[in-house]
Amino acid sequence: MALKTAEQYYQSLKNLHPTAYILGQKVENSHDHPLIKHMLAGVAQTYTLAQDLEGKKCLVAKSELIAEEVSRFVKFYENPDDLLAKVRMLKFLTQRIGTCFMRCTGMDAINAVGIEAFNCDKKYGTNYWDRLLAFLKHVQKNDLVIFSGVTDVKGDRSLRPSQQKDPDMYLCVVDRNNSGIVVRGAKIHQTGSLCAHWGLIVPAREMHEGSKDYAVCFAVPADAEGIIHIYGRGTLEARALDDVDLGNVEYSKFAPMVIFKDVFVPWDQVFLCGEYEFAGPMVRNFGTFHRHSHGGCKSGVGDVLIGAAATAAEYNGLPNVSHINAKLAEMIKTCEAIYGCSIASSVEARQTESGIYMVDPVLSNTSKLYEGKELHEVVRLMIEIAGGMVADVPSDKDFQNPEIGPLLQKYLKGVEGVSTEDRVRLFRLIEKLAFESRDIVSNIHGAGSPETHKMTVLRNADIESKKKLAKKLAGIKEE
Amino acid sequence: MALKTAEQYYQSLKNLHPTAYILGQKVENSHDHPLIKHMLAGVAQTYTLAQDLEGKKCLVAKSELIAEEVSRFVKFYENPDDLLAKVRMLKFLTQRIGTCFMRCTGMDAINAVGIEAFNCDKKYGTNYWDRLLAFLKHVQKNDLVIFSGVTDVKGDRSLRPSQQKDPDMYLCVVDRNNSGIVVRGAKIHQTGSLCAHWGLIVPAREMHEGSKDYAVCFAVPADAEGIIHIYGRGTLEARALDDVDLGNVEYSKFAPMVIFKDVFVPWDQVFLCGEYEFAGPMVRNFGTFHRHSHGGCKSGVGDVLIGAAATAAEYNGLPNVSHINAKLAEMIKTCEAIYGCSIASSVEARQTESGIYMVDPVLSNTSKLYEGKELHEVVRLMIEIAGGMVADVPSDKDFQNPEIGPLLQKYLKGVEGVSTEDRVRLFRLIEKLAFESRDIVSNIHGAGSPETHKMTVLRNADIESKKKLAKKLAGIKEE
Amino acid sequence: MALKTAEQYYQSLKNLHPTAYILGQKVENSHDHPLIKHMLAGVAQTYTLAQDLEGKKCLVAKSELIAEEVSRFVKFYENPDDLLAKVRMLKFLTQRIGTCFMRCTGMDAINAVGIEAFNCDKKYGTNYWDRLLAFLKHVQKNDLVIFSGVTDVKGDRSLRPSQQKDPDMYLCVVDRNNSGIVVRGAKIHQTGSLCAHWGLIVPAREMHEGSKDYAVCFAVPADAEGIIHIYGRGTLEARALDDVDLGNVEYSKFAPMVIFKDVFVPWDQVFLCGEYEFAGPMVRNFGTFHRHSHGGCKSGVGDVLIGAAATAAEYNGLPNVSHINAKLAEMIKTCEAIYGCSIASSVEARQTESGIYMVDPVLSNTSKLYEGKELHEVVRLMIEIAGGMVADVPSDKDFQNPEIGPLLQKYLKGVEGVSTEDRVRLFRLIEKLAFESRDIVSNIHGAGSPETHKMTVLRNADIESKKKLAKKLAGIKEE
Amino acid sequence: MALKTAEQYYQSLKNLHPTAYILGQKVENSHDHPLIKHMLAGVAQTYTLAQDLEGKKCLVAKSELIAEEVSRFVKFYENPDDLLAKVRMLKFLTQRIGTCFMRCTGMDAINAVGIEAFNCDKKYGTNYWDRLLAFLKHVQKNDLVIFSGVTDVKGDRSLRPSQQKDPDMYLCVVDRNNSGIVVRGAKIHQTGSLCAHWGLIVPAREMHEGSKDYAVCFAVPADAEGIIHIYGRGTLEARALDDVDLGNVEYSKFAPMVIFKDVFVPWDQVFLCGEYEFAGPMVRNFGTFHRHSHGGCKSGVGDVLIGAAATAAEYNGLPNVSHINAKLAEMIKTCEAIYGCSIASSVEARQTESGIYMVDPVLSNTSKLYEGKELHEVVRLMIEIAGGMVADVPSDKDFQNPEIGPLLQKYLKGVEGVSTEDRVRLFRLIEKLAFESRDIVSNIHGAGSPETHKMTVLRNADIESKKKLAKKLAGIKEE
Repeated sequence: MALKTAEQYYQSLKNLHPTAYILGQKVENSHDHPLIKHMLAGVAQTYTLAQDLEGKKCLVAKSELIAEEVSRFVKFYENPDDLLAKVRMLKFLTQRIGTCFMRCTGMDAINAVGIEAFNCDKKYGTNYWDRLLAFLKHVQKNDLVIFSGVTDVKGDRSLRPSQQKDPDMYLCVVDRNNSGIVVRGAKIHQTGSLCAHWGLIVPAREMHEGSKDYAVCFAVPADAEGIIHIYGRGTLEARALDDVDLGNVEYSKFAPMVIFKDVFVPWDQVFLCGEYEFAGPMVRNFGTFHRHSHGGCKSGVGDVLIGAAATAAEYNGLPNVSHINAKLAEMIKTCEAIYGCSIASSVEARQTESGIYMVDPVLSNTSKLYEGKELHEVVRLMIEIAGGMVADVPSDKDFQNPEIGPLLQKYLKGVEGVSTEDRVRLFRLIEKLAFESRDIVSNIHGAGSPETHKMTVLRNADIESKKKLAKKLAGIKEE
Repeated sequence: MALKTAEQYYQSLKNLHPTAYILGQKVENSHDHPLIKHMLAGVAQTYTLAQDLEGKKCLVAKSELIAEEVSRFVKFYENPDDLLAKVRMLKFLTQRIGTCFMRCTGMDAINAVGIEAFNCDKKYGTNYWDRLLAFLKHVQKNDLVIFSGVTDVKGDRSLRPSQQKDPDMYLCVVDRNNSGIVVRGAKIHQTGSLCAHWGLIVPAREMHEGSKDYAVCFAVPADAEGIIHIYGRGTLEARALDDVDLGNVEYSKFAPMVIFKDVFVPWDQVFLCGEYEFAGPMVRNFGTFHRHSHGGCKSGVGDVLIGAAATAAEYNGLPNVSHINAKLAEMIKTCEAIYGCSIASSVEARQTESGIYMVDPVLSNTSKLYEGKELHEVVRLMIEIAGGMVADVPSDKDFQNPEIGPLLQKYLKGVEGVSTEDRVRLFRLIEKLAFESRDIVSNIHGAGSPETHKMTVLRNADIESKKKLAKKLAGIKEE
Repeated sequence: MALKTAEQYYQSLKNLHPTAYILGQKVENSHDHPLIKHMLAGVAQTYTLAQDLEGKKCLVAKSELIAEEVSRFVKFYENPDDLLAKVRMLKFLTQRIGTCFMRCTGMDAINAVGIEAFNCDKKYGTNYWDRLLAFLKHVQKNDLVIFSGVTDVKGDRSLRPSQQKDPDMYLCVVDRNNSGIVVRGAKIHQTGSLCAHWGLIVPAREMHEGSKDYAVCFAVPADAEGIIHIYGRGTLEARALDDVDLGNVEYSKFAPMVIFKDVFVPWDQVFLCGEYEFAGPMVRNFGTFHRHSHGGCKSGVGDVLIGAAATAAEYNGLPNVSHINAKLAEMIKTCEAIYGCSIASSVEARQTESGIYMVDPVLSNTSKLYEGKELHEVVRLMIEIAGGMVADVPSDKDFQNPEIGPLLQKYLKGVEGVSTEDRVRLFRLIEKLAFESRDIVSNIHGAGSPETHKMTVLRNADIESKKKLAKKLAGIKEE
Repeated sequence: MALKTAEQYYQSLKNLHPTAYILGQKVENSHDHPLIKHMLAGVAQTYTLAQDLEGKKCLVAKSELIAEEVSRFVKFYENPDDLLAKVRMLKFLTQRIGTCFMRCTGMDAINAVGIEAFNCDKKYGTNYWDRLLAFLKHVQKNDLVIFSGVTDVKGDRSLRPSQQKDPDMYLCVVDRNNSGIVVRGAKIHQTGSLCAHWGLIVPAREMHEGSKDYAVCFAVPADAEGIIHIYGRGTLEARALDDVDLGNVEYSKFAPMVIFKDVFVPWDQVFLCGEYEFAGPMVRNFGTFHRHSHGGCKSGVGDVLIGAAATAAEYNGLPNVSHINAKLAEMIKTCEAIYGCSIASSVEARQTESGIYMVDPVLSNTSKLYEGKELHEVVRLMIEIAGGMVADVPSDKDFQNPEIGPLLQKYLKGVEGVSTEDRVRLFRLIEKLAFESRDIVSNIHGAGSPETHKMTVLRNADIESKKKLAKKLAGIKEE
């Protein structure tokens, strides 16, 4: 059966023993750790909702590869409808989770790698495509979670990989033999790597003749020998350690740094190794697919931001005020632009030679540009509507204190009919939505940074043809 | 044959004799007037391109109504693909015209009226739908141009039609008999009314019990007795009178005020008369469809703005400058958001009971909100890239003057390889694109004003369901 | 001697015993608590720098009241130069502290209250002005820190104080006798109340005939009987408890809720009591002065944001990149507008009858509008320039761990010549600057919320005279 | 007497006989031409208002040079108060004129040249400063109007003056002898050159060793032999030729191209000639002063835009609508930022060695950045508030037509109590304010283009010191 239940997912993790460090401690059973479990809960929802009547429509599809129903998270984009369905699925999920459920990185990586594995085989007679298909069958049959290792630590960003003083600032092949390769390096911001079964590792940039050893793509189990996950500290994790004032009471995100300390990878898990001209396209494919994903997931988070702001207005006693409505409309506008451009980039997708469909890059990057710049303003508008209590509500422990608890109950009451507790819960949610560094920074830098999106837009926008339109109207004859 | 050639279109106008005033003069053959002919040229392109191989794909479709190929401009939206095709057609056209080709107002009005004619018949047993089908068959068979009369002059905008001191500030029925009705009033900003064969007149706002006489919708020939077209003066029309410094050398827009001086309309041209509860939905349908149209046409104009800016940079000797590229990317971003949200609103369309598809109103109004606010910034960026010569290039007559012409040739030269003449032509185009009042004001107020778009977004965005999402994540139990 | 040293300040706090609760615990010596001490350090800098050669120029001035040099923080605004000096002082301080040093709330309250105490005496023959002068002399001679209690908890915000179900949602007089009054209520967001010696309590809104008991203004020691300070939890306080990963290694802000549980106030500390028509002007004065203060302090924080971003670019190996420079220019632009409008509002100040100068309200509120909306974008630009490492750098404890510490040292290295430790310190500072809820929410809601600023601008901008200018140019004759 | 009346100004022009071409015609008495006279009227106001009680306070000051009262337009900036007074004077004037009165370019040029003439003399022992003083005395005593010739035509903008194929793309010295120099070239966008008595010609950019001949600064009468003024055509000039539909009924702007066809300049009018290292500072001084001027004049125009929008709302029957108020507040915010930063840059001015005060360049360029980007949005907001009638009101000739005039009177009526004529006048003013190319392009490109302003901000903002602030707070030790 190609679809796991949430329980089967949790069960499957018991067989994984990743090396993990959290806040300075080596942690044996990381999946039980309070800083990990809220993101596992999000991933688990991708399994639970796939069994749900409404959720199933979004999350499940027939795979041509194994001729079975599989999770969309482990499927090729076989037509524009798959891409439309993906955007809607991601929005559906974040509306219910309010943060990251992580499985889209793997999905986008599988498709991004697939296109170039096919192209590389065609040029060089390699057999990466077949290897990838074999890997994907395994993933589909076992309904696995894949994290995508893209972002290297990069060292001095003005230098290419081979120019760095320390050659390990980009992940690279340091040894190879008949059975496989040995890789070294570190991937940073690895969304939920401790929730995944496998990683799919992709080069982070274009490579050139001199940096062939950096042009490497492969799959690897999350607990392979030599892989070390180091939890990166975010703004609000102390609440989770305390189990109070969580804001989002069930779900949260983390993104470890993953160090590859001379990790061995057998050849049948390798999908690129040295054919440097495919490294750039691979990561550009990934970026463009992943910006397309953000168009779905972040517009879903946007709905939560809008809902939280509107609820705060209601709880403050200001349910239908002209200036608040104007702000809500502004919030909606941005979220719909993010969503709409992602939907449109699905509609205007084109088939690649591998059969996988590639979204329109101008529209998908435009969606991400709005996320990168304007979603921060949506967050600000939510704070503006909610009011100052986002800053500094007393702790739940204060509410539990018998001396001051009743005073807080009394004085933090808003409109009649809403309990102080519910009001405080809402402000904690807003705090989490506004100030969780992993989420907010992902709005800006997730799936590449805004400058990358701008460059991608410029490279793909065909400005020369637009110049021709203008010249024609001006009556300028072109030779 | 249901598709006219451009020549047949021009020929067909010879049978029309509209009453027209231009800059204070009564004009007999308005279709030959220099201020009218550049918009006729734009409309003519909708005929020419329908015969063209590439254009035909965009512009022509099978009508179920007459079982023939017809212009998309006179067709119902029978499925989401029709709506997608419409957006792409409009973009295709403005890329080639750089301004308005006018036929979308009629197309949107036909569909907007159709939905409510059907609903009204269902409620009251009227026969508006059949009348509309009969009218539409005539339009399709003759490939006619329809202007849509929506915007009334409105008088004191804080008052309803029936509260106005002068009851004629909204068009209304002033008499009726067995053969038809008599209407009085004035519709303003009637895009290209003098290029049209017929008008389709629609109420401009919601109506109530007390304003039944204002709830009237009908078709009328552009030269019916009592109809007076008065040309409204725009910023640049003096150039057209002179035939120099046109900027856009072939195409231009105008939008007369059309006065209805007790015009008789036979019953079979009447599609609503007194059933006031359908007036609001009718104009809201129109607005939502027409904002969807803008998403296509204005993103096409956007491509011309981008092309003009990029060409100016090249002509100034600055073809690949970092800050100019950043500005071009910003221009593209806005235009793609306008386009993308319009495409997405097509994909998410839903069928009405009439069979006609209605676009997603949140997405179509979001598209228009970007046009209304951000397209002005796109224009500014074009000016910023082009430089100060947008302000005040000497006249073509100066270039023709033997004493100073050579000096101007010498001193207004830009980069090598581009003639001074071409450079000046380009600056004239940019001036036209930036300062033609009819175009720029249409970006802001066309298809309703931004406040209307905001209200439409708010009314349709289902904020209550978003509140539920937020409450659930915050752990707030709802009763 | 009217100027304390920092040591004398710390010493003086030993005589204060405020009732304080922090994260659910009653705390005896709150001034030693790790969550309090970083803000005390900021306040202490206002004393230290007053002794410093450069700092003295900003911070010290002659008081006419006691004919001695005093801290500007306890001085009337006696002329426009005092107002200019204030803006520059506040900028000077935040450039060195990077967050709040709190003393401006008391300074602004003293002046705001002074103007209306004088006006009230003039109208009613009360003696509030003399009482205030007496209080101020005491403050000046002892160089005290004053917090200003303005913001009430407000309950249902659509209701006036007397309409609330619970009458205590705005602070009010609940009893009075010959010696004084008894007050009840709660003031929220009380910036650094546990760093202060006294509070100056001001009504939070306009009052009417029916809400006379809410029109009350008075001074009270921070440890008066019945006053309870409850620490409000912010995003990053867990770092301070741990003493690692602070970001800003010395300074931080907090803003307790202060509950007045039937607090007695002797008459000579009362500066308004029942004369309701002065409540509104008092809080409006305060707001306008405090927005003027923000113009100084937040533009100083802005310099830190700019510096942090520029340093991150350098540490990442991208010291002089075109798009980063463009972003830095954008950041500077906003901060200079905030500063410039505040400077200009000082220059255009006008004397009130009390002799105290009132800043230009349109310019001071304009400054705050830029802070409220655009400073959030400055923060976003800082994150955009800095890159993804703002989200999730591993903890200092990970760096201390002998197994992974060296790997982190290796892989988180940026450009040559900068230690990994310094790079991480910088990212922690950026995290603090971007995600400390008390600071960020203060940008938006401090000194009133943006809607208040807009209304103040509109009320003071004299739009009628602008209408006259337009009509005159249009050739419209006015009767 | 150093102050002329308006009549004396007009009289003085009769002695000037500039060579002028307007729309292809050589014009003898250009000062009487309909396209020139509306700007002369603006200049004349600078004389009229100097005699007025209120205006005199703004416009007249004592000159130390001739120990008489002179117009501020011909005076050195001798202290920060002169700079403050200048900003207020310019705002005062544009509030009354609604467009350009032109004399600030000469004023800024005199001061910009003065600083470097002094510096050059100091370095090389030249006597430019004395020559300039002599010239300025003449100007002051005769209360002359000076245009400043800065912007060259520039050819290929990627090339330096000496690299251009045609060496005349920047004005340069082509001959010299004992009596003076001969110059050739063309200055474009010469605001109101035909209203001036003299021009003060300044290099447009930095010069290097190889382009010494381009490092030339001098004064020249507006009708010197070889000087040709060619009127540049703007969007709305046809209205002035017709004398109807002017919008701004008295005032308008133009900015000819001025060609120097081998013009002889005697040595005593030369203030720089070959000392190339002063060319850059000279034009940068000018730019910074002139952006400071814009802060005054454009915020005054802003008041007219705000007033026009508010009047349109009133005339439409929407005098106090929430969303319109929000838009007015937004308009005010931008205009006050433009004004406030200009005021602040006066306060923070510093004395140069010449004695002339230089404004703070960061603040003055910040003001201009808001003008360059945000004033366009202010214009858009005016259009948004005013409504669609900005696009296409029928001509005054239509109103005069006996057949349709009464219909237009009837149907274009707005709120009761305002005549249709006044309403139309207002819409014409708004059209002029929104679409006069010379004004709108000046917002963007006047006093240099936005990129120049950004670079000036970056160059002067002392980012290194801000980096130090951030490092200190992060606990980073600097060597």
